Amino acid sequence: MKEIQVGLLGCGTVGTGVAKLLINSRQVIRARLGTTLNLKRVADIDIETDRGVQFDEGVLTTDANALVNDPEIDIIIEMIGGEGIAKELILKAIDNGKQVITANKALLASQGNALFKAAAEKGVDLAFEAAVGGCMPTIKSMRESLVANHIQSMTGILNGTCNYILTKITDERRPFDDALAEAQEKGYAEADPALDVDGIDTAHKIAILTALAYGTEINLPGVYIEGISRITPLDVEFAEHFGYRIKLLAISKRKGDRIEARVHPTMIPFDNLLSNVNGTVNAIMVSGDAVGDIMLYGRGAGMMPTASAVISDAVDIARNLMAGTTRRVPALSFQRDHVQNISIMPMNEIVTHYYFRFAALDRPGVLSKISGILGSHDISIQSMQQKGRKTDGSVPVVMVSHQAKESDVQDALAEINDLDVVGEKTVLIRIEDEQLD
Amino acid sequence: MKEIQVGLLGCGTVGTGVAKLLINSRQVIRARLGTTLNLKRVADIDIETDRGVQFDEGVLTTDANALVNDPEIDIIIEMIGGEGIAKELILKAIDNGKQVITANKALLASQGNALFKAAAEKGVDLAFEAAVGGCMPTIKSMRESLVANHIQSMTGILNGTCNYILTKITDERRPFDDALAEAQEKGYAEADPALDVDGIDTAHKIAILTALAYGTEINLPGVYIEGISRITPLDVEFAEHFGYRIKLLAISKRKGDRIEARVHPTMIPFDNLLSNVNGTVNAIMVSGDAVGDIMLYGRGAGMMPTASAVISDAVDIARNLMAGTTRRVPALSFQRDHVQNISIMPMNEIVTHYYFRFAALDRPGVLSKISGILGSHDISIQSMQQKGRKTDGSVPVVMVSHQAKESDVQDALAEINDLDVVGEKTVLIRIEDEQLD
Repeated sequence: MKEIQVGLLGCGTVGTGVAKLLINSRQVIRARLGTTLNLKRVADIDIETDRGVQFDEGVLTTDANALVNDPEIDIIIEMIGGEGIAKELILKAIDNGKQVITANKALLASQGNALFKAAAEKGVDLAFEAAVGGCMPTIKSMRESLVANHIQSMTGILNGTCNYILTKITDERRPFDDALAEAQEKGYAEADPALDVDGIDTAHKIAILTALAYGTEINLPGVYIEGISRITPLDVEFAEHFGYRIKLLAISKRKGDRIEARVHPTMIPFDNLLSNVNGTVNAIMVSGDAVGDIMLYGRGAGMMPTASAVISDAVDIARNLMAGTTRRVPALSFQRDHVQNISIMPMNEIVTHYYFRFAALDRPGVLSKISGILGSHDISIQSMQQKGRKTDGSVPVVMVSHQAKESDVQDALAEINDLDVVGEKTVLIRIEDEQLD
Repeated sequence: MKEIQVGLLGCGTVGTGVAKLLINSRQVIRARLGTTLNLKRVADIDIETDRGVQFDEGVLTTDANALVNDPEIDIIIEMIGGEGIAKELILKAIDNGKQVITANKALLASQGNALFKAAAEKGVDLAFEAAVGGCMPTIKSMRESLVANHIQSMTGILNGTCNYILTKITDERRPFDDALAEAQEKGYAEADPALDVDGIDTAHKIAILTALAYGTEINLPGVYIEGISRITPLDVEFAEHFGYRIKLLAISKRKGDRIEARVHPTMIPFDNLLSNVNGTVNAIMVSGDAVGDIMLYGRGAGMMPTASAVISDAVDIARNLMAGTTRRVPALSFQRDHVQNISIMPMNEIVTHYYFRFAALDRPGVLSKISGILGSHDISIQSMQQKGRKTDGSVPVVMVSHQAKESDVQDALAEINDLDVVGEKTVLIRIEDEQLD
């Protein structure tokens, strides 16, 4: 059987993992695939550093174009990252009729529609299992295993950095900055952590999954995004009082002819399995009309888990090539002529449950003032907790609402925050709990 | 695009689910697949009962052979069950060059090697995603997503009936018989529950998965099987004291040039995610050298979840047929010329941790006698608990061992059970806990 020739663009952490698997696990891959995935060329700006991989003579090069233009290379794996040169090389590879694999969620979330269109026009595959959820078979399950389902919702912990930090804040009652510093020290967070802790990376992933789930184009600007930097040990403690843990969730729901797509810190009940997913691990719960709920769990990042997902794409493509076919499964799960334009509901129109923490001055009538404003905006409260000592004359008053509309909540909080008897800005954390009214 | 013609053998619970999806979810399947999966014929001995599905005129028949011999039918879905007529029809369908789908784990576990051989010789697919773990994408993940991994182990809750009963014993401290009766009342257990509660169904599934994971033939007789009927609320309570929950686990491990494959009630720590998988749900943890641990979770049985898995196979096969190919992925994950004969370690040679509950008469020297016998068989104890009131003059004495060998344990227990000062037979439950020495 003819060998399949692979070119690897970018030999950073995950790229090195890909090289390691292609070289060190060549036997087991061949035993399953029936032929060899041969790593023909690797392009990187640095070809001097020892990566702990034994490349054959002439494999390494600094010239990325030499790979995308090599007529013998069947599959190009893009592991450069970013939206500049990576995009350019992907488009060149597509244009040269090569099958392409990427884990570049930022690029796919922002410019995926154009890239998938280019791949479709050229009749090649653009695969991206590793872009969402690392080694969890997220894309494959959504596209293939759930093929008979109308997807109803997805709820995921899709960023290991945030989950690690929130686990530290929860288990050790440490402030955000402190937990972030430890994550950076351990290599779980970047020097500039904004992409992770501000929820942007999670939004990239849910934007991609949302397109796959419901058969719509990728719409990153439609995703509401809120990060975790305002989460405090105090709120974690109150959450536990109500039976909740705080996770950065990506939430995507089919709502009639529209979609909800949002990323924000969320309180979920202890008996929700996602509440027990701790540390750097990822998990995603997907609901479909036939299956009910299924959950996937695994490492969402890291050299070898991500590389494993990349190779699963490469083997899929290789099996297609061996059968003389490409584009066996549509990139975004639906055939292109069935992709609709389903609009994402503006955040203001979301209806959910809310946790509020008010910094109320300890004076008579304050509580009635706050409740009055909430009531006048159609927000009713199902439980209230006042606890702990005063800080600067104010005590934390915590409330959990019945279902309320986001715009009403924002209007009410703006009024409440303006009160003289309220100190710091009110903390708002959304709740996902099907047991609540 | 040419429609793909499907014939359904057996229209019981899951068969009806398959028919429902093919008819009611035809649009969404077509939007993803690009053509229609047409349910051409359905064979069942009962064609009178209203199943809540609107079949077209002439679709239903009592003649199964009419389907397997119909030259227009591309895919035969076998939902009859059992090892008699089902096997015969599968072989006829294969012989007629049809692609075949089954969820018949009993048949595959006992006669799969011959069936897969027949399919290979004829160049057709024999797909079985629904045979293990219902709607969890177990087979697909193992064969495709983990393709670059050396699988190291699998630990699964693969029988919803047992998990429901154990959950009842745990949460409500009810005896086994009582919990089983409720499971039967709710339709979660059969009138004859042996296949489930004796661990046999779980063994069928782990026998199939073991073949897929390590590239060996299916070896059901090699799997050690122990059911849950001896689990008591008292042992559940002691387990909790040590930080464990009791689950019926299917355990499969690669151990050098051999394999462990066993099904038995197992104590696992609270922080093992599987310990939080309750009710009728299934879950499986798979460890691979690249991914670390991944977990899948979902309904392991039931009409629609199982049917969803069947249709995922049908769509996979349809995509192959549309591309003019078959057998794109090897049935047992490895190419047939790479399948080895890896032996399963006899249960006697297993090394693990043990929980013992002795019914010891409350007399001086009894404990030293028991410990003496354990010690003489190289079994050392890491914690001991004596608790509760006497029953018939005996008190339960509970011990957790360090790592010990099964044969030593069996020898020691035989001696101990023979002691005059020991009442009922000693209870033994194996422990899987990586934190223990």
